[in-house]
Amino acid sequence: MANTNENLNVTEQLENDIADVQFLAEQLLPFRHDIQAEANHQFSLPEPRIHAQLQMLMGIIQELHPADMAAVLENLPPKERELVWLLATPEDDGDVLLEVSDTVRESLIEHMDTQELVAAVENLDVDELAELADTLPENVVAEVMKDLNEEERAQVQAAMSYQDEQVGAVMDFEIVSVRADVSCEVVLRYLRRFDSLPNHTDKIFVVDENDILQGVLPIRKLLVAAPEELVENVMAKEVVQFSPLDDVADAAAAFERYDLVTAPVVDENRKLIARLTVDEMVDVIREETEADMLNMAGLQEDEDLFAPVWDSVKNRWVWLAINLFTAFVASRVIGFFEDSISQIVALAALMPIVAGIGGNSGNQTITMIVRALANSQISKSQAIRLLKKELGVALVNGIIWGSAMGLVAWLLYGSLGIGLVMVAAMTLNLLLAAVLGVMIPVTMERFGKDPALGSSVMITAVTDSGGFLIFLGLATVFLL
Amino acid sequence: MANTNENLNVTEQLENDIADVQFLAEQLLPFRHDIQAEANHQFSLPEPRIHAQLQMLMGIIQELHPADMAAVLENLPPKERELVWLLATPEDDGDVLLEVSDTVRESLIEHMDTQELVAAVENLDVDELAELADTLPENVVAEVMKDLNEEERAQVQAAMSYQDEQVGAVMDFEIVSVRADVSCEVVLRYLRRFDSLPNHTDKIFVVDENDILQGVLPIRKLLVAAPEELVENVMAKEVVQFSPLDDVADAAAAFERYDLVTAPVVDENRKLIARLTVDEMVDVIREETEADMLNMAGLQEDEDLFAPVWDSVKNRWVWLAINLFTAFVASRVIGFFEDSISQIVALAALMPIVAGIGGNSGNQTITMIVRALANSQISKSQAIRLLKKELGVALVNGIIWGSAMGLVAWLLYGSLGIGLVMVAAMTLNLLLAAVLGVMIPVTMERFGKDPALGSSVMITAVTDSGGFLIFLGLATVFLL
Repeated sequence: MANTNENLNVTEQLENDIADVQFLAEQLLPFRHDIQAEANHQFSLPEPRIHAQLQMLMGIIQELHPADMAAVLENLPPKERELVWLLATPEDDGDVLLEVSDTVRESLIEHMDTQELVAAVENLDVDELAELADTLPENVVAEVMKDLNEEERAQVQAAMSYQDEQVGAVMDFEIVSVRADVSCEVVLRYLRRFDSLPNHTDKIFVVDENDILQGVLPIRKLLVAAPEELVENVMAKEVVQFSPLDDVADAAAAFERYDLVTAPVVDENRKLIARLTVDEMVDVIREETEADMLNMAGLQEDEDLFAPVWDSVKNRWVWLAINLFTAFVASRVIGFFEDSISQIVALAALMPIVAGIGGNSGNQTITMIVRALANSQISKSQAIRLLKKELGVALVNGIIWGSAMGLVAWLLYGSLGIGLVMVAAMTLNLLLAAVLGVMIPVTMERFGKDPALGSSVMITAVTDSGGFLIFLGLATVFLL
Repeated sequence: MANTNENLNVTEQLENDIADVQFLAEQLLPFRHDIQAEANHQFSLPEPRIHAQLQMLMGIIQELHPADMAAVLENLPPKERELVWLLATPEDDGDVLLEVSDTVRESLIEHMDTQELVAAVENLDVDELAELADTLPENVVAEVMKDLNEEERAQVQAAMSYQDEQVGAVMDFEIVSVRADVSCEVVLRYLRRFDSLPNHTDKIFVVDENDILQGVLPIRKLLVAAPEELVENVMAKEVVQFSPLDDVADAAAAFERYDLVTAPVVDENRKLIARLTVDEMVDVIREETEADMLNMAGLQEDEDLFAPVWDSVKNRWVWLAINLFTAFVASRVIGFFEDSISQIVALAALMPIVAGIGGNSGNQTITMIVRALANSQISKSQAIRLLKKELGVALVNGIIWGSAMGLVAWLLYGSLGIGLVMVAAMTLNLLLAAVLGVMIPVTMERFGKDPALGSSVMITAVTDSGGFLIFLGLATVFLL
């Protein structure tokens, strides 16, 4: 259990820490009541071995960066998580709460009393406080708000008034601004008066006397500029800027396109009110892409890996129910052809192949379109072009794979008719999958819905019912 | 067609530009040979309307940031893309090539001759040149390398020697370093001698006389430090650093955890050789998460939205073939029970319900596990715990949904036996889906494979064959 090893990179180090904490927490679990009882953290545990393990665990925890502590907590089952959280450094509690996922945060807050919570969050920045406020008990928020000054209170309330997917909800208020008509030397002297500059400061905002944004002064230009040069001659006037009402995913995409580290947020009069930083945008990018992936499979946005069974059932039941309903429809389609099946029982064995290839191919198409929609926009003329292309792919696949399976069916059941029906049904179902693989997400997007949401369940529903209908229908018409 | 509108945010502006270029390029397509013929860009087109449209298109293109130009090109079909690329500002060509996806880059390079390519890439940074080198014709690379100095050539070769997924492949060589024993004032004076500092410079690296990394001097600390203070008293000594051999996804995760903007890359002796910047890491994060999503559906990493039909067929055929094979196996499972089906034809109609709910539930489980594996590690003891939880969820769902469908089957077919077999088969297939939904990705990961790769196809294969076997098997034993 090497704690700090010079030869490990940061990832290996974190993996080691997680594994060590997992192991130690599991060992200490039987003693958790003893540990909880010792409020002053002066533990005296019965066995020396257990006591040593507790010391080791505390040693690891105290060394952890808040983000690493968050990763450790995410990877612990509920009881172990509670134990480790009890041993965490109280000063870091607020930062850890900011880093963990929503569901894990709830489980942590559950085990903290008002006093602990106030202590954890009272030193956070206002934007961080606003981020947590929704999940905190009301009396904790009230308590902390009391200690803020007028301006800070207004900022917290402003940040809380925006939707989660708006820039306003993730912007921060630590802005450094200067006037355009001062020299670079004056700026440098002004900056030196700060105890420290805000994180990620890569540019100083330039405003006029009414705080209207005039431009930005990149630090990397300030540092090489002649001291007597005026800010207005060094600053960039074309600035990528955001409104608090902008979509946060759009802002993240802009950070990605233009390689930004920070960017100003201005109100409708171009008055500077806050800034966005790349660390928040990175989180947005990961969350957006992951949400697409989860949504396609019919899961809600996040599920604590160790959530109680019942929470998981609730998270997943909607799409399971929809799937069950569509499967029932498919079943009734088959039921309609029971006569045909009782005459040619081979149909029952072959029909899932037709449905299956349609589902698989449709999922490939829909995944591609969902990704394309997330990264750009697809205009109407393009949708038609994409549809044509997908139909082409479906036709080629239908002819190749349909012929292959048709041949197999012919050989297996000694009926050329069954083979030909197989070729036709597979090709038609692949074409159906192509049409709906493009139409479903494009239509969802056009009506302002998330194109990823349950798209996999929907396409499978269509290719199942459709596949059965096409195959059994063709067989009934041509073989009976 | 408002080109620059003060009231649009950057996203709306880009969407407008994309739509405008799409429209204009489509209009101009019939005249592309005339336009191509005019090598000197002094176009004289027959109709004034067409000429005006060409001027408008060129006006938009010239104003575009290279990253926006890349977005525009990604969203154009091949012929229009070729036309717009012809009109692009040659000085930006290199930057645009860096921004587009691999498949689109290939299509662009195809239409450039050696001279154009050399002109496009000769002014790129060495790390950028190394990134493009694989996709460029050999004679272009040779030509450009000739103009580099010894050190730069060595850097290009070093960067090219690493795998795509290694830090070495994305690191850049623009590093600014100082000694620990100088004052902050000296550092500021030294920096002023640069024409400009490298992009994203948020810290200066501190090295000894052998270039061994001693620490980092954050610019935000340098700016507030007293001028006479020594660097060694201001610098941070605990530095997150990477080796060129580190996994780039791990590095990106570290950037995300520790909110980094840049970080040093050192060799095995801690000698500073390069740096990583957050803009590259943001790309890695998006690509990693998207690759998971595409891989789950059985698509390869990237597919040009407008790829020719045949390219798309090749990109997707492997998993379609696998799917077809597994569907065939499922079909043979049903074939084995043809006797039972010919006696109770209702079985044919009900069996897809059992298979379907297993597939859907299995996909939910596998998506969650794939996501968890991407973000952290799951130890052996946790895999067992997760398995238990998923079995619990499957049992609850089996009892609830199995009973509901069992009741429906009983009412539909007037046979309590069929209803009970339905309940049992659905529950068992859900349990099977839970076991394999956990086991497949965890096993893939353990053997060093990508847990996302085709996982959706695999789980569906198991729940189809398994579902048919369980349902028809139970029906044969208890109902016949």
